[in-house]
Amino acid sequence: MAFMDKNFLLDTETARKLYFGVAEKLPIYDYHCHLSPREIAENKKYSDITEIWLGGDHYKWRFMRSMGVDESYITGDKSGFEKFEKYCECIGYAFGNPLYHWSHLELQRYFDIYTPISKKSAGEIWEKANDALSRFSTQKAIKDSNVDLIGTTDDPFDSLEYHKIIKESEKLDTRVVPTFRPDKAVNIDAPDFKEYLEKNGVSSLEGLKKALSERLDVFVSMGSRISDHGMVTVPYLIKSEGEVAEIFDKAMAGKSVTLDESEAYRTNILLYLAREYKKRDVVMQLHVSAIRNNNTKMFKKLGPDTGFDSIGVFSLAEKLSRFLDALEVEDSLPKTILYSLNPGDNYMLATMLGNFQGDGIKGKIQLGSAWWFNDHLDGMREQLKALESEGALAAFVGMTTDSRSFLSYPRHEYFRRILCQRIGEKVEKGEFANDEEILSEIVADVCYNNAKKYFNM
Amino acid sequence: MAFMDKNFLLDTETARKLYFGVAEKLPIYDYHCHLSPREIAENKKYSDITEIWLGGDHYKWRFMRSMGVDESYITGDKSGFEKFEKYCECIGYAFGNPLYHWSHLELQRYFDIYTPISKKSAGEIWEKANDALSRFSTQKAIKDSNVDLIGTTDDPFDSLEYHKIIKESEKLDTRVVPTFRPDKAVNIDAPDFKEYLEKNGVSSLEGLKKALSERLDVFVSMGSRISDHGMVTVPYLIKSEGEVAEIFDKAMAGKSVTLDESEAYRTNILLYLAREYKKRDVVMQLHVSAIRNNNTKMFKKLGPDTGFDSIGVFSLAEKLSRFLDALEVEDSLPKTILYSLNPGDNYMLATMLGNFQGDGIKGKIQLGSAWWFNDHLDGMREQLKALESEGALAAFVGMTTDSRSFLSYPRHEYFRRILCQRIGEKVEKGEFANDEEILSEIVADVCYNNAKKYFNM
Amino acid sequence: MAFMDKNFLLDTETARKLYFGVAEKLPIYDYHCHLSPREIAENKKYSDITEIWLGGDHYKWRFMRSMGVDESYITGDKSGFEKFEKYCECIGYAFGNPLYHWSHLELQRYFDIYTPISKKSAGEIWEKANDALSRFSTQKAIKDSNVDLIGTTDDPFDSLEYHKIIKESEKLDTRVVPTFRPDKAVNIDAPDFKEYLEKNGVSSLEGLKKALSERLDVFVSMGSRISDHGMVTVPYLIKSEGEVAEIFDKAMAGKSVTLDESEAYRTNILLYLAREYKKRDVVMQLHVSAIRNNNTKMFKKLGPDTGFDSIGVFSLAEKLSRFLDALEVEDSLPKTILYSLNPGDNYMLATMLGNFQGDGIKGKIQLGSAWWFNDHLDGMREQLKALESEGALAAFVGMTTDSRSFLSYPRHEYFRRILCQRIGEKVEKGEFANDEEILSEIVADVCYNNAKKYFNM
Repeated sequence: MAFMDKNFLLDTETARKLYFGVAEKLPIYDYHCHLSPREIAENKKYSDITEIWLGGDHYKWRFMRSMGVDESYITGDKSGFEKFEKYCECIGYAFGNPLYHWSHLELQRYFDIYTPISKKSAGEIWEKANDALSRFSTQKAIKDSNVDLIGTTDDPFDSLEYHKIIKESEKLDTRVVPTFRPDKAVNIDAPDFKEYLEKNGVSSLEGLKKALSERLDVFVSMGSRISDHGMVTVPYLIKSEGEVAEIFDKAMAGKSVTLDESEAYRTNILLYLAREYKKRDVVMQLHVSAIRNNNTKMFKKLGPDTGFDSIGVFSLAEKLSRFLDALEVEDSLPKTILYSLNPGDNYMLATMLGNFQGDGIKGKIQLGSAWWFNDHLDGMREQLKALESEGALAAFVGMTTDSRSFLSYPRHEYFRRILCQRIGEKVEKGEFANDEEILSEIVADVCYNNAKKYFNM
Repeated sequence: MAFMDKNFLLDTETARKLYFGVAEKLPIYDYHCHLSPREIAENKKYSDITEIWLGGDHYKWRFMRSMGVDESYITGDKSGFEKFEKYCECIGYAFGNPLYHWSHLELQRYFDIYTPISKKSAGEIWEKANDALSRFSTQKAIKDSNVDLIGTTDDPFDSLEYHKIIKESEKLDTRVVPTFRPDKAVNIDAPDFKEYLEKNGVSSLEGLKKALSERLDVFVSMGSRISDHGMVTVPYLIKSEGEVAEIFDKAMAGKSVTLDESEAYRTNILLYLAREYKKRDVVMQLHVSAIRNNNTKMFKKLGPDTGFDSIGVFSLAEKLSRFLDALEVEDSLPKTILYSLNPGDNYMLATMLGNFQGDGIKGKIQLGSAWWFNDHLDGMREQLKALESEGALAAFVGMTTDSRSFLSYPRHEYFRRILCQRIGEKVEKGEFANDEEILSEIVADVCYNNAKKYFNM
Repeated sequence: MAFMDKNFLLDTETARKLYFGVAEKLPIYDYHCHLSPREIAENKKYSDITEIWLGGDHYKWRFMRSMGVDESYITGDKSGFEKFEKYCECIGYAFGNPLYHWSHLELQRYFDIYTPISKKSAGEIWEKANDALSRFSTQKAIKDSNVDLIGTTDDPFDSLEYHKIIKESEKLDTRVVPTFRPDKAVNIDAPDFKEYLEKNGVSSLEGLKKALSERLDVFVSMGSRISDHGMVTVPYLIKSEGEVAEIFDKAMAGKSVTLDESEAYRTNILLYLAREYKKRDVVMQLHVSAIRNNNTKMFKKLGPDTGFDSIGVFSLAEKLSRFLDALEVEDSLPKTILYSLNPGDNYMLATMLGNFQGDGIKGKIQLGSAWWFNDHLDGMREQLKALESEGALAAFVGMTTDSRSFLSYPRHEYFRRILCQRIGEKVEKGEFANDEEILSEIVADVCYNNAKKYFNM
């Protein structure tokens, strides 16, 4: 097959028919990302490809470090072109790394550049891409990518001012909704917990719960029906409301809490929030097993989200089961999406779903799409395999970019190609019936319709 | 390739030669299942396909729940046809789920129905299957499936009355033997431990051991040489016989035991039983890493084995090693089959085997066939890969259905096709010598001969 | 494809071009093995193939035990031919086991024997191989295999006398360097800890550190820039220097230390050594997750390294992160290679690398090649997949045999074929650009150049 041409990954007739006949045309429902509402609202433009491509993309930074590139070319003071050229040189060797496909797809889709990336081609790509960038803006990228909805990631106490501006403006057909992500109110052992809550006028557990519920109402009023939690593992330790209030007060008095106290607090607040989500039909996303900021030296130099995170391995099954069961038993379990950064959890999670499906909701509990370090060809296939084998692929709400970049929409295309490839392969081997209606329906549902119905935003 | 025709999964000439020339003709040695001896003895018949297909099959129930089907169609009061039609509708979309292949193979082999299952075909399948069912019975299914032996799963104190009836009757050539599964005597922290032992006239640890040994003799006298243990993890905590007797007495006095006490008791009784197995050349099966009844609400409504179990993730290696070593060091390690529900344990287990092989027994310690949530195309292949890479595939005792359904025999066919496919693939790539005699011997051994010699029943 | 001929595993045109055009011709840089310096120095010859093939190869012993072979044919008193014939019989059935490919490659490359191994061919192979063995010696095997460098594995207090002899002799172009492996000075809870240190004149923690540093200087002066640590898990528990010295003194007084004390000591000594490595640009290898000598009965009979080890499963991520960070924060992290025997750790480790890459060193932190129980076709592919997806394959230092056998060099060939196969596959699917220069560079770097530059020996 030719290099990354229109049939990229589509190695069967069935795959091509499903991709071009169904998947390609569907809008993108990008329910979980880290795009900046401000940069959308202000319709940001970029001076050169280094700014948009390498400015804040820690996936790319990590790869350059692995290849032995000096930090001055990564987060240092080298010129835009020097950084760009160095990245192109690295990418030329990035065999099997998802950045290789992403980078090429981004050049193809946004800048109409089909040259393989390498040191040799860096100069030519720089010219062409920068020329195209002069006609580029965040809103244009969104429009050209046929995006139906964007779910950003927001602190509960965020003013949502840029969301309001986007909503009031009539320039963008794409809906942009905030996601309620209250990590700072949950992480009682974080150094800024007290300061964060004080800044937001919270002084008691009861007050916090009230405040969070009110803010959740605001988010819902802005069209959101989605929340998100990032955590190392799933807590489950039950203490009475009084005891938890004392733990909260202890933390707010500036004292450090024990591991058990922290777990009891987090269990309490997460169960509370889950019940609030359920009442409002808000989806709960749980992202677990990331260990962050592993490199203290670089954290001090560059801060968080700069490429120093990795996969944790934990025994999650039992506490996760008890956490979900505690909600289910009182009919308070909201729609939930489970993501673990550890691919070794795929089968455990895919079977956990089945314990709590119900209420006549298609795929009420979801195995999240291959996330972060799993968001590559093999990782996506493995996520699909686990979901297919243990659950219902046809009920899957599909891909999320989880990205900070306005050039990430081709990752949806990437996912759709992989999905169609996998279906095509099994159909042509006689392992699944070649019923065009059903195949088309599965593809359309996983690429778009399921998410639209599930989130109902 | 055509949809699930005679060459299903057999995509090389070598695979087809091995399957049709060797595997297909061999009897089934179904050494571990959950079929009801009563339903065999009474030669049960079924009123319609919903009764036999959906009556107690919690794999199917789970899948329907995942697809958003209301519980009334699953365990509720909808009519047989309504339930059946809903299941067919779901299966039409079950891309990649093992139910898809199992359901089609069951219709093909038992009812001669080759139509792809979907909502559209539900009515036609209903008619044809129910017509065929009128000529169907449990004993007929067993005979038609060329089953040499069935190992059911039985409580030590079971009267085995239906086993006796089957044995005395001369209608069935298939031997049906009980499996000694003393979980209720092992699980000291289960709520019904005390009641269970009292009901069976046991009041002391010594008395329990004596009773279990006597019952084991009865099982052996019935032709059984197989035992089974279901447990969350492998215990290993040694306390003296006196201390363990005290723990037992505490539990029988209605007091709850600590985690350590429970582990010490379970270690003691399991080591005792293993020694008894070794004396009688009884195979010990250990099934670990299932976490059960995760959904309390549904457990209260429907009871156990209704589709609310899932995979646990535990660090088993060290305790398992010490448990097996404690037996090996005193020459008391029986033939043992290790199953973990966590596919992440495949390689750990496949290497654990090698630590305790010996006594000149081919595959004395076995990696159990892909079990429960792993019993699908990828799961079976992964089990084979781990076993091949770390141990001896040629010594494998092969497939077990672990099933509650009389329609499950095609799962042996499924396994055999996968085995022949895998061998064919490597042979045709030049990765294994194309020696027909050796290839045929491996296939025949794994499909039937090894199990027959190993269990010696 | 024909059985294991010259195109073995090379199933695309691109793979063949890369293998024959680039990989095949490159020298071997065997930076980590367990070859005996004495047997190299003495240019050992072998009386028959059983001595060299089966004499100490516990991989082969394990497999024979799995196949039910009596111990008399393995480590017992059967004749050389009887043992050999039995092994050949077993290998004939070793479908999917790496021994199958290794054994055939060894016969092909060293003895020009292309017959498939089985009981039938045992006699013929015995004759041919023994005839060829009469012209064979350890040094000849090394020369014929085009080995640039051999890194053996040595105790810090080893006299290195055979290394000196090899160095002074001018018969061998291959450099042979020792590897600093101070496990006996680290494992404070091993029964021989005290005796070992006393024998080497060490009586205090300070004295031990001084002695190890001095010995490290000696190793470096012999041309070594490589160390190795074998450990069950990664320790991380910080206590003061004074406290650790007390723990050391306690152990040297013959008292047993607690688990925490042991962990604190091991953390301290490993951090100390890592700093010393960094000062001398010595690479640190960490081999974790092996559980050894699981079978006490056989350990008493045969000792260590006789085939009774297996994979452990542990939660390594957090402590490993903190261990590496403790070094990084003080600019003392040496080049490091991380190996886990648990293949479930591949993705965790492959992402851990990225946290600590830097200093402008290409692949400063490495994911070790598929090791021991992972050193097979699927295991190597899985290691490559994890490394590609999460890091930079192009920066990989490549294969190591980790072997005790002078017939192991074809494992480098095996790795190179697998590498070229994987690259060929993606290139021909259009997933990677077909740029001959870049592809050749990646292959040459991973097969030889990266290791040469990285170890700088």
